[in-house]
Amino acid sequence: MRKQILRVVKIGGNVINHPEKLKQFLIDFSKIKETKILVHGGGRLLDDLALKLNVPQTMVQGRRVTDASSLDIAIMTYAGLINKQLVAQLQSLCCMSLGLTGADLNSITATKREVQELDYGFVGDIRTESVNLKMIKLVLTNGICPVFCSITADGSGQLLNTNADAICATLAAALSKEYEVKLHFCFEKHGVLLDVADDGSLITQINSEQYAALKAQRIFNGGMLPKLEMAFQALKLGVSEVVIQHAENLVASLSEEKCLGTKLLLH
Amino acid sequence: MRKQILRVVKIGGNVINHPEKLKQFLIDFSKIKETKILVHGGGRLLDDLALKLNVPQTMVQGRRVTDASSLDIAIMTYAGLINKQLVAQLQSLCCMSLGLTGADLNSITATKREVQELDYGFVGDIRTESVNLKMIKLVLTNGICPVFCSITADGSGQLLNTNADAICATLAAALSKEYEVKLHFCFEKHGVLLDVADDGSLITQINSEQYAALKAQRIFNGGMLPKLEMAFQALKLGVSEVVIQHAENLVASLSEEKCLGTKLLLH
Repeated sequence: MRKQILRVVKIGGNVINHPEKLKQFLIDFSKIKETKILVHGGGRLLDDLALKLNVPQTMVQGRRVTDASSLDIAIMTYAGLINKQLVAQLQSLCCMSLGLTGADLNSITATKREVQELDYGFVGDIRTESVNLKMIKLVLTNGICPVFCSITADGSGQLLNTNADAICATLAAALSKEYEVKLHFCFEKHGVLLDVADDGSLITQINSEQYAALKAQRIFNGGMLPKLEMAFQALKLGVSEVVIQHAENLVASLSEEKCLGTKLLLH
Repeated sequence: MRKQILRVVKIGGNVINHPEKLKQFLIDFSKIKETKILVHGGGRLLDDLALKLNVPQTMVQGRRVTDASSLDIAIMTYAGLINKQLVAQLQSLCCMSLGLTGADLNSITATKREVQELDYGFVGDIRTESVNLKMIKLVLTNGICPVFCSITADGSGQLLNTNADAICATLAAALSKEYEVKLHFCFEKHGVLLDVADDGSLITQINSEQYAALKAQRIFNGGMLPKLEMAFQALKLGVSEVVIQHAENLVASLSEEKCLGTKLLLH
């Protein structure tokens, strides 16, 4: 039997910070007819609040070090303000939605990252086995759209900060056992760019081998490298399609069956 | 057919601010074998954060005036930090829980309070008709304990601040159509006191007529008056039991079938 389609959509980057762009994105997202999951990043809000509260933020190789105060701020902004505003807006668009952290419904159980060369603090790492398929399926089969923020928990009462791309890719991979999963990473660029400063340098398709070659040339920087790593891993684990695209191209890429972004291929 | 028992438990007051007392309360709450709902207040956290962020708070007759900045802080602290810490702790106690605002699952739709003599700002009023029985029953019948914070939404994308006692009493009343509802208001006092400064002045039972007489004598002040109003209203609307009690007496009042607090009676 052919599996049902599930679209897992990540919204991140600057779109979260622009009320008008975000609103349009949510209108577009709510038009997806298939079973769907939204995963959101945090935008600038955490940094703004940390600054106001005098909690200095440390970034190492594009990854945030999450001390106890920064974790509280992450929970307040990601699981609180952003998540609930998204859910309220989706409900107004008749999209029956439910905001979730990994703690809710025990949906994603993470492991606190071990201290090696660096102590990342309250950061949770996840694998496909971290995903509670039973509970997420219960939500999906009842026509409810889960809206995941990037907060997880360790099962022992400790909340943890987890990369939103990792949540998105891991959910997609885990759910590919049950659904034909199409994964969309939406942000403010048109996809993967050969030159991040040149919107004309869009790569429309890239396979694992091409990716490895470009990675060796250090073409990708910032958050794009881990995003691509996780996206290719999701493909290997059974996700049927991965597209990295501009948020404004989400709807067009659904209906026209063309990519409008960067399509990732295994081979 | 006899209806199934549902216990709706409010935790508020200073218990939220004391990690050890809160932990013990959650251990006790997780022992409730019947279908259950937890509703939580905000404790001191909102005021602490508002102070740090220089957002002045205005209280009128024990009720908060919620401007846009205060609403954001309420969402961050109630729906974010407190709600998710409670859910993560309950999961560690094997209580399958799900944190909710009224926006999630469209579970409680509020109406922004009309401006009359005073503009309360982004405050939402609710009635039993505001409660989405279908969605809350879906959660309950799957063995999941909803954990409600005191944030609702208006169905048009606007989040609103709503009194936690009102949420508790309204959920209890609405669900009494489907369940035999027992409502527990838990806090740091032993119940309703004739003299708020004297723990020995506990009223063990009070009916509507006695309440009306004591109210006329202005015995009740602070948050107790609206709490009692809403509790008696819930009884009138079909809730089978209402107890106002110390958080540490929750478990004993379940097993010994005695009240250990103030029991409210219609007549």
